Amino acid sequence: MDLSRLSLNQRSIHRWSLTEAIEGCARHGVGHIGVWRDKLAGQSTSDIRHRLRDAGVCVSSLCRGGFFSAPDASSRMAAVEDNRRAIEECAAIGSSTLVLVSGPARGQSLADARRTVSDGLAQLAPYADSHNVRLGIEPLHPMYAADRSVVVTLQQANDLVSALTHPSLGIVVDVLHVWWDPLVRVEMLRAGPHMLGFHVSDWLVPLPDVLLGRGLMGQGVIDIPLLRGVTEEADYQGPIEVEIFNQTLWDLPPDEALRLICASFLTHV
Amino acid sequence: MDLSRLSLNQRSIHRWSLTEAIEGCARHGVGHIGVWRDKLAGQSTSDIRHRLRDAGVCVSSLCRGGFFSAPDASSRMAAVEDNRRAIEECAAIGSSTLVLVSGPARGQSLADARRTVSDGLAQLAPYADSHNVRLGIEPLHPMYAADRSVVVTLQQANDLVSALTHPSLGIVVDVLHVWWDPLVRVEMLRAGPHMLGFHVSDWLVPLPDVLLGRGLMGQGVIDIPLLRGVTEEADYQGPIEVEIFNQTLWDLPPDEALRLICASFLTHV
Repeated sequence: MDLSRLSLNQRSIHRWSLTEAIEGCARHGVGHIGVWRDKLAGQSTSDIRHRLRDAGVCVSSLCRGGFFSAPDASSRMAAVEDNRRAIEECAAIGSSTLVLVSGPARGQSLADARRTVSDGLAQLAPYADSHNVRLGIEPLHPMYAADRSVVVTLQQANDLVSALTHPSLGIVVDVLHVWWDPLVRVEMLRAGPHMLGFHVSDWLVPLPDVLLGRGLMGQGVIDIPLLRGVTEEADYQGPIEVEIFNQTLWDLPPDEALRLICASFLTHV
Repeated sequence: MDLSRLSLNQRSIHRWSLTEAIEGCARHGVGHIGVWRDKLAGQSTSDIRHRLRDAGVCVSSLCRGGFFSAPDASSRMAAVEDNRRAIEECAAIGSSTLVLVSGPARGQSLADARRTVSDGLAQLAPYADSHNVRLGIEPLHPMYAADRSVVVTLQQANDLVSALTHPSLGIVVDVLHVWWDPLVRVEMLRAGPHMLGFHVSDWLVPLPDVLLGRGLMGQGVIDIPLLRGVTEEADYQGPIEVEIFNQTLWDLPPDEALRLICASFLTHV
């Protein structure tokens, strides 16, 4: 694997602003960046596009939309509105993929919450299409089912895409969320041309923290080359995004953190 | 739900010896007990049977066998041997079900480790049968995939039972491990007569601890009555075992802990 495929998800180096992260990627030869909306907020998107072009860095995805599963109609409408803004931002910075995290049930039954996700996707898909943006449903690990995402398996995400049959819908595969799944290979191959992103990090043993305990590739138990091989079988040729929520990594000087990320990417992906 | 269906899994009240737990169940009107092997060790099984009979308490299951997924032939043989002892102990205390936790991959690929589980089950099934013991494969939550169990979904456990086609094999459903699964109802119904146990506790938000953060029924987000309803659809009529690993509960005076367990069982199961 070479660094032209690597995308630095901004959450891996939390201390950098978007401009600093773009410059950091250029300095380290990293080809792509995964942008977060909170880091984009308040900036001129045309200025960001220029900086990206000058640095030779492409945007792999914008993180994140979603959180559809609101318990009442008005907050559901607000969620759809916010996702429309996210689609516009995504198009404005030249990214073709908006990553979607479904959101928790917030007092609804899981079945009802899952229906609101499906409804939200159906409402957004045409708007995404008109902006040349694709919506990447990212199933999260089942340990986040209660507080972050009622979509927890690749099969479930693929089923949503199949049922809604809209060309702007696809899925994002993050190894941390799916490595344990007996169906991981089958469902990654099923995603095929609908696979809109591939994220890597590692599962540490013992798990230091449910949210901030993700490891650098090679530090944990996930067979990342095996899953990267499946992306090739599925003909996925896009960027490979490194998304590591880890306090220790966040505490390092950012250039040192990015050096570690690049080295672990070259050796263990 | 009444207390005659309740089984106290011994891990819910860690401080009680087996004898104390049997007496505790009798005192509180709890009909069943889930026995742990470490609590049984060193005791006379005929003495325990007498105590159970005198107390009017039945054994719902013995916890636990399994941990098949050893990386080499000799430790795999040792695991099968240890499971034979567990089957004998299970029969000796008059329990019809041995709960099996598969074990982690221990350096093997997930696929290889899963094959060793299947091989171990195939080796043990006839021995279990000859002792009138059934083997309950318990899929654990995917967050335990790295360190406790390579079997992580009901579908996977049902697939093992289907493939091995031995009457002594079945599955144990613990709501904490499976509540998030979009296939939970389908796979519980598929288990049908092979469902050998039903365990309850609750998923707290935020999760206080990966291992010791289970809640009393009603304290978390799991729709336990919904899943208990599915056991009825599946015609499961056995005990409902309360298995709560929780430091706060362990720190309470045991009779107070059991009062809380009974109250939460009556109200939230």
